[in-house]
Amino acid sequence: MKAHTEYLTFHTRTRRQYINITDRVEAALRKAGIQEGLAVVSAMHITAGVYVNDAEDGLIADIDKWLDQLAPQGVDYRHHRTGEDNGDAHLKNLLIGHEVIIPVTKGRLDFGPWQQVYYAEFDGCRDKRVIIKIMGE
Amino acid sequence: MKAHTEYLTFHTRTRRQYINITDRVEAALRKAGIQEGLAVVSAMHITAGVYVNDAEDGLIADIDKWLDQLAPQGVDYRHHRTGEDNGDAHLKNLLIGHEVIIPVTKGRLDFGPWQQVYYAEFDGCRDKRVIIKIMGE
Amino acid sequence: MKAHTEYLTFHTRTRRQYINITDRVEAALRKAGIQEGLAVVSAMHITAGVYVNDAEDGLIADIDKWLDQLAPQGVDYRHHRTGEDNGDAHLKNLLIGHEVIIPVTKGRLDFGPWQQVYYAEFDGCRDKRVIIKIMGE
Repeated sequence: MKAHTEYLTFHTRTRRQYINITDRVEAALRKAGIQEGLAVVSAMHITAGVYVNDAEDGLIADIDKWLDQLAPQGVDYRHHRTGEDNGDAHLKNLLIGHEVIIPVTKGRLDFGPWQQVYYAEFDGCRDKRVIIKIMGE
Repeated sequence: MKAHTEYLTFHTRTRRQYINITDRVEAALRKAGIQEGLAVVSAMHITAGVYVNDAEDGLIADIDKWLDQLAPQGVDYRHHRTGEDNGDAHLKNLLIGHEVIIPVTKGRLDFGPWQQVYYAEFDGCRDKRVIIKIMGE
Repeated sequence: MKAHTEYLTFHTRTRRQYINITDRVEAALRKAGIQEGLAVVSAMHITAGVYVNDAEDGLIADIDKWLDQLAPQGVDYRHHRTGEDNGDAHLKNLLIGHEVIIPVTKGRLDFGPWQQVYYAEFDGCRDKRVIIKIMGE
């Protein structure tokens, strides 16, 4: 069994941003030299997420609007009594999930035709990290 | 370490449908011959999901109604400017999740008494695939 | 490859409760003696969840309120025709997710600074179980 670990760092210019990281996960997989196994891609923060969906700008705008409808910014969350203002980002993280697990077959991410991995930043403008862990043989 | 991979294909008659696939995951596990490990069950599409919950028809009706309240069909999503009409199916996928990971112990899915694996179709009437990947020893 | 399995049991005094189980997952990891791998922490029930987020009481109150807004208790769910009254707990489980997967690096949970594992009880006052499965080398 082999294990390969990489960390990506993101520093967005806006509070919320959606970044396609499929190429970077594939690059990590090539370095791992693993043919059969599992890849975990996970935000190391509680105000960011990782999800799998389509690389289509209209859809990304829909996702952003939808997340802010279901977990709105600007609400007077109890979490804000600590001095934070990012209660919405915590809830968006819980809604979208912070990690995905991707099967690896014959040295490739075993995805369907439209599946892409995204990093979803909900409280950006500072360094945030993602871990890629690939395990297999 | 062993890895076993299977693909299931579904072609539903209705746009949305919920299919209990626990037996098929168990059958894949028997073929894998793995006693200790992890099983990933993952939709290979961005308009379908996989979840674990109860095999109870009333609850399935509740889940369907609830998903359509939180991510409604019939909204004028920006994604529809591409000619698609399935924006809601993308959001339902993000809400329910596209994959589950199930512990395997002594050659069995290590589930509690009511846990069942479901394939959730949100944009059906065409061939859609699910991957089962089991890794262990 | 090694695999280590543990079961935790919870019996809450209230219907809904959020319990930080990070220490117990770390204790399981020490027993597992695994340096590189993956840890799965999964509720064995369909009315409870496991998530990763912040150990901050205000936020936990926000999460509880938010979950009950999106998947409210007291609605006349179809599931209740079976005699159950926990339809909301099933939907809360689907919203928050029932399992997380955590990378293990150098014998530690490879978490960011604020990430903590929580057991989320949505239908308590009875024995409920969580499985911890750690796989690696």
